[in-house]
Amino acid sequence: MTEQQLLARIKEMTLEEKVAQLLQLAGPFFEGADGQITGPMASMGITGEMTAHAGSVLGVAGAGQVKAVQDAHLRGRPEAIPLLFMADVVHGYRTIFPVPLATGCSWDMELVEKSAEIAAREAAVSGVHVTFAPMVDLVRDPRWGRVMESTGEDPYLNGEYARAFVRGFQGADLTGDKERVAACVKHFAAYGAGEGGRDYNTVDMSERQLREQYLPAYKAALEEGCEMVMTSFNTVDGIPASGNKRLMRDLLRGEWNFDGVLISDWGAVKELIPHGTAADEAEAARRAIEAGVDIEMMTACYVHHLPALVASGEVDEALIDEGVLRILRLKQKLGLFDDPYRGADEEREREVVLCADHRRAARELAQKSCVLLKNEGVLPLKPDRSIALIGPFAESGDILGPWSWLGSQDEAVPLYDGLAAHADPSRITVAEGCGIESGTPEQTAAALEAARAADVIVLALGEHSGMSGEACSRGDIRLPEAQLRLVAELRTLGKPMAAVLFNGRPLDLHGLIDQTDAVLEAWFPGTEGGAAIADLLFGRVNPSGRLSMSFPHSVGQVPVYYNHFNTGRPKDALDAQEHYVSKYLDIPNEPLLPFGFGLSYTTFAYDTPTLDSASMSAEQPLTVRVNVANTGETAGEEVVQLYIRDMAGEVVRPVKELKAYRKLFLKPGETAEVRFDLTEEQLRYHHSDLSFASDPGEFAVFVGPNSRDTAELRFRLTK
Amino acid sequence: MTEQQLLARIKEMTLEEKVAQLLQLAGPFFEGADGQITGPMASMGITGEMTAHAGSVLGVAGAGQVKAVQDAHLRGRPEAIPLLFMADVVHGYRTIFPVPLATGCSWDMELVEKSAEIAAREAAVSGVHVTFAPMVDLVRDPRWGRVMESTGEDPYLNGEYARAFVRGFQGADLTGDKERVAACVKHFAAYGAGEGGRDYNTVDMSERQLREQYLPAYKAALEEGCEMVMTSFNTVDGIPASGNKRLMRDLLRGEWNFDGVLISDWGAVKELIPHGTAADEAEAARRAIEAGVDIEMMTACYVHHLPALVASGEVDEALIDEGVLRILRLKQKLGLFDDPYRGADEEREREVVLCADHRRAARELAQKSCVLLKNEGVLPLKPDRSIALIGPFAESGDILGPWSWLGSQDEAVPLYDGLAAHADPSRITVAEGCGIESGTPEQTAAALEAARAADVIVLALGEHSGMSGEACSRGDIRLPEAQLRLVAELRTLGKPMAAVLFNGRPLDLHGLIDQTDAVLEAWFPGTEGGAAIADLLFGRVNPSGRLSMSFPHSVGQVPVYYNHFNTGRPKDALDAQEHYVSKYLDIPNEPLLPFGFGLSYTTFAYDTPTLDSASMSAEQPLTVRVNVANTGETAGEEVVQLYIRDMAGEVVRPVKELKAYRKLFLKPGETAEVRFDLTEEQLRYHHSDLSFASDPGEFAVFVGPNSRDTAELRFRLTK
Repeated sequence: MTEQQLLARIKEMTLEEKVAQLLQLAGPFFEGADGQITGPMASMGITGEMTAHAGSVLGVAGAGQVKAVQDAHLRGRPEAIPLLFMADVVHGYRTIFPVPLATGCSWDMELVEKSAEIAAREAAVSGVHVTFAPMVDLVRDPRWGRVMESTGEDPYLNGEYARAFVRGFQGADLTGDKERVAACVKHFAAYGAGEGGRDYNTVDMSERQLREQYLPAYKAALEEGCEMVMTSFNTVDGIPASGNKRLMRDLLRGEWNFDGVLISDWGAVKELIPHGTAADEAEAARRAIEAGVDIEMMTACYVHHLPALVASGEVDEALIDEGVLRILRLKQKLGLFDDPYRGADEEREREVVLCADHRRAARELAQKSCVLLKNEGVLPLKPDRSIALIGPFAESGDILGPWSWLGSQDEAVPLYDGLAAHADPSRITVAEGCGIESGTPEQTAAALEAARAADVIVLALGEHSGMSGEACSRGDIRLPEAQLRLVAELRTLGKPMAAVLFNGRPLDLHGLIDQTDAVLEAWFPGTEGGAAIADLLFGRVNPSGRLSMSFPHSVGQVPVYYNHFNTGRPKDALDAQEHYVSKYLDIPNEPLLPFGFGLSYTTFAYDTPTLDSASMSAEQPLTVRVNVANTGETAGEEVVQLYIRDMAGEVVRPVKELKAYRKLFLKPGETAEVRFDLTEEQLRYHHSDLSFASDPGEFAVFVGPNSRDTAELRFRLTK
Repeated sequence: MTEQQLLARIKEMTLEEKVAQLLQLAGPFFEGADGQITGPMASMGITGEMTAHAGSVLGVAGAGQVKAVQDAHLRGRPEAIPLLFMADVVHGYRTIFPVPLATGCSWDMELVEKSAEIAAREAAVSGVHVTFAPMVDLVRDPRWGRVMESTGEDPYLNGEYARAFVRGFQGADLTGDKERVAACVKHFAAYGAGEGGRDYNTVDMSERQLREQYLPAYKAALEEGCEMVMTSFNTVDGIPASGNKRLMRDLLRGEWNFDGVLISDWGAVKELIPHGTAADEAEAARRAIEAGVDIEMMTACYVHHLPALVASGEVDEALIDEGVLRILRLKQKLGLFDDPYRGADEEREREVVLCADHRRAARELAQKSCVLLKNEGVLPLKPDRSIALIGPFAESGDILGPWSWLGSQDEAVPLYDGLAAHADPSRITVAEGCGIESGTPEQTAAALEAARAADVIVLALGEHSGMSGEACSRGDIRLPEAQLRLVAELRTLGKPMAAVLFNGRPLDLHGLIDQTDAVLEAWFPGTEGGAAIADLLFGRVNPSGRLSMSFPHSVGQVPVYYNHFNTGRPKDALDAQEHYVSKYLDIPNEPLLPFGFGLSYTTFAYDTPTLDSASMSAEQPLTVRVNVANTGETAGEEVVQLYIRDMAGEVVRPVKELKAYRKLFLKPGETAEVRFDLTEEQLRYHHSDLSFASDPGEFAVFVGPNSRDTAELRFRLTK
């Protein structure tokens, strides 16, 4: 349909029909519905009539099922508008890729794009039209459970991932390519900054901080053409995002010209009431529609109250019409008016979902997402040595992580299976050692016995998937005590010991990293996790992941992140004996492991970088060059990172900001020159009046393998 | 001198003389100076000429010494302007009162005012003209070392203390009463909100948060007539306070009409350079003078650069003239042009400083500042029982706390001395048990032996004074491990055990509060600490302190404070089984001990409070009444607290806000009616456009003995 036809269609709709388009309900409201309203539907006050007219569905999957619901919706009602089917396809549909925080350590945008494409394909042939991804919330607090769903602490890197995910999900032609899905970037805005790392908690920051650090990744997704935006649960400057007119109407729609569909997070419109910014459902509906929220997910403030609010003149019907128009435009773009099934296709579903190609891609991304945190001679494992594989994750399939949609632990490759495919299984003994949160003396004894008989111990430790994800914040970010005790017991044997970690957040690694010879951070690596980890442990693949979030020294140091400000009394710059500096008495200022950090089985040497000039300008970019050599005996990938610092701004500027990186593959002995072109645009920031511009003056540029170990040069920006 | 004469005087001054008035140097620049510039003076580039013309001196004390420096300054120079002498008289001059965080638990404004008056008197007769107090920074992070210098987490209560301190320091007539000093409220603004609780660290928050929570106490001090303001070290919205024109020139001077002297904190003007908001000293000088900073403390950007900046036209000389005028006005108000010695008087110094009356007042305030956190039958101590006094603070004089100026540990009453004055000393055995941060097996053994022989154990534990205060942030807020081990060892004896805590911050009390029968939080109680604590332990005085800052469950819960927002998914309001609420998996949301909490040796019963109406308006205040009875057998004081909640605001509103309190003394069996009149003014808050107003609608009012255990009523505010 043309825009004119869509407008004409809206004109024909009753107010109630239009408002129903703004409603999104979960699958149970539709699946098997035979007119009887029971359970949650009844308690929400949703009538059969509303369901019949609802605009979109959440969480229904499977080509057959989607077609059945669509059929039931359209049957015998020529005026009916096809349903939009949306789902949380976050890091895979059924072929599960590493969690986004892991993916964030790959620094490999092509592979990330491919993973999103595969997720889109599996979802699309199963009838899904829109995925609630990517989640691009910048995060600095590892207590937050949902940190696993973010790509980390850097605004630039998060933006690059945001773009890759959107390209992968949507492809170049959403209308023409029915095996893609529309993306919905979330959670707008700043959901990752909840106070105390507690999920759904208050967010408060200056507008400049918001614009400088938190907004860029959402904006990057929209620049890439992302079709939808989801509101966040939190407040932004005192007003919950789902009722925040300034954020949504003025900034998102006005300033950024976003004209796609804005959907609330689950129940977030009605949550304006507990937030204390709406006295009742009617006020919640009014504030949300005025803010520009098009779709209300899983509460019914709109359907219950918008008709009366329009009738009384409190809400302008034009607000509803524009919301409906945006929804119908998306349905049109997805081709639903021509083919309400879109990609749903049982045959393709059987071919595509969890196919061998997809598993291969999942294995590759898992290889790139693991980060080698420590290695003192024990890795790679030699295949002729006997291995004691010990820990609650030795044979566990709980390695998919939260938000794994249709992923099944039964389809996942546990670590043991991965190892057994590389080495003689008779040389691998397994002991659980303890459970994830508790253990028995018998488990410890069995683990010690297995360890004594082996040449090398491989530990498989971590958090179960219920310890991270939504509503799963932790106040203590160490490994559970039972696992630390197990490590201490095994340490007494004096055997070489490598640990593999399965977890959803940066942990306080004390009691582990200091007690073992090697640590491989595997995160929740997805369906092919065990296979990918085995590839790395045996050196078939060389680890290349680099942390996209700092690992704190301890929870008492949170928040700790690389791109902080210098303060007026920085600890490092002054006499080490100076008392009156910004510090803790008992812990360092620096994180245990910095942003950008990761080891390899080979070594890379950096020459001193060079600049082509001591100054640059808007017309004259600066070229930074550095030679990087593989000085070891193994081929491997290195992530060459470039950071800048504005030495004196109108407002304070970070001590380092990532501006570019290059991922290189180098054979042993090979050297490559890496060239970065730095433009004036990359030196801009938000001033105190929020203007976005650069200032002439001195800058530092840093090049190195991570945010800590860099070589520094200076240059001037001139007018 | 009249204003006209001051202006005429300024006209006669050279630019260099005027700029020198803006300089403050520490005592060593003056004391014994004979024209030779060495040491720090040389490294700062301060010449003898500059020192001769400097406007004020920091940290010189003693009537004789002050007079000598003033004499040397004025001698033979009829044109010379008398020096202003300033010092950090924070919680006492030589008679040391409890640290402000302790004082903040007294809820006794008269006594706090008296303590400030005494500090002023001792300081004034010793030649001090201005004290760098009160510090009224709101704080929510116990990791921060300087939390001991704040009165806590509540904007209203902090404001009440700010007023009391200013009244006490300045009195009603600063010109006429030479035994008062000018007050300097600090640190403007929001120094208490440093990220990660690390001193001097970045502060970032929304302007509404700043105005709503952080600014009120500074404003209260100014409304009380506070003569001076000190800048904070931190950034406010990206710009260090000492160069923040918007904060200082627009808000403080413009909006609030503050026309007194604004002084930088130590070195803070030059720190604009490491902050990265000034490229060099000249830019730092320009930004600070433009922001309205009159006095530069301990760096020389002004004297080095303002003359040239004026000459080049980059800085308007009028800015300098107005700074000088404000400084001369203060000197005039203090009477220095008539009597440059002001209160400095060796004879009064001998009479007044550390006199018996002052010690009595210090003892009384210490009694009121201690908070009884737990008591299961062990307190008050019976004088006929034998006591084992165990712990590193048993006989320690390190109970004054940081910023104790001329206070001496030798003049302090240690806990043992206090106890021995109440009980037969032969019944008290003492064992150190361990040091503050480490112990030996021999110490443990001696402690166990002493404990075995006694009827009751009194523990004296805590942090030494170097573990809190400026630049003393801690990442771990538990008692040091050695002390926790000592507690665990003693617990095995099964004897009644009461702990007295000496410390400068809310601690994570696990391992102490659960292992002892009673805990008395004594903070750093000052000169008469041991005497006051003994008064409480033996029941001569009934504990009445109430926490002005929450005690967190653990550092992983920080920040935790009572006046938080509700969020859209509050844990308490929903089904306890509900997963998707704002919570931690492993720790509670609530602090271990809430704001306003404290026990007594008696019990108080609250009747259900009543309202005189179901609604109120600007014209018609609401009266809240509650009967409170002493239902125990001991006379005692209760702090009746009133909180409100705006149920639906234009922006989110705290779940509770303290609006009033009444401290009552009740004999056993006595009942009193407490009446609060709540006005529309108390219901105002800062809206999204920063307007300060109330909204009609529903409110809750809570009355109770602390912020947690309250009875709730509802009323409506009508237009």
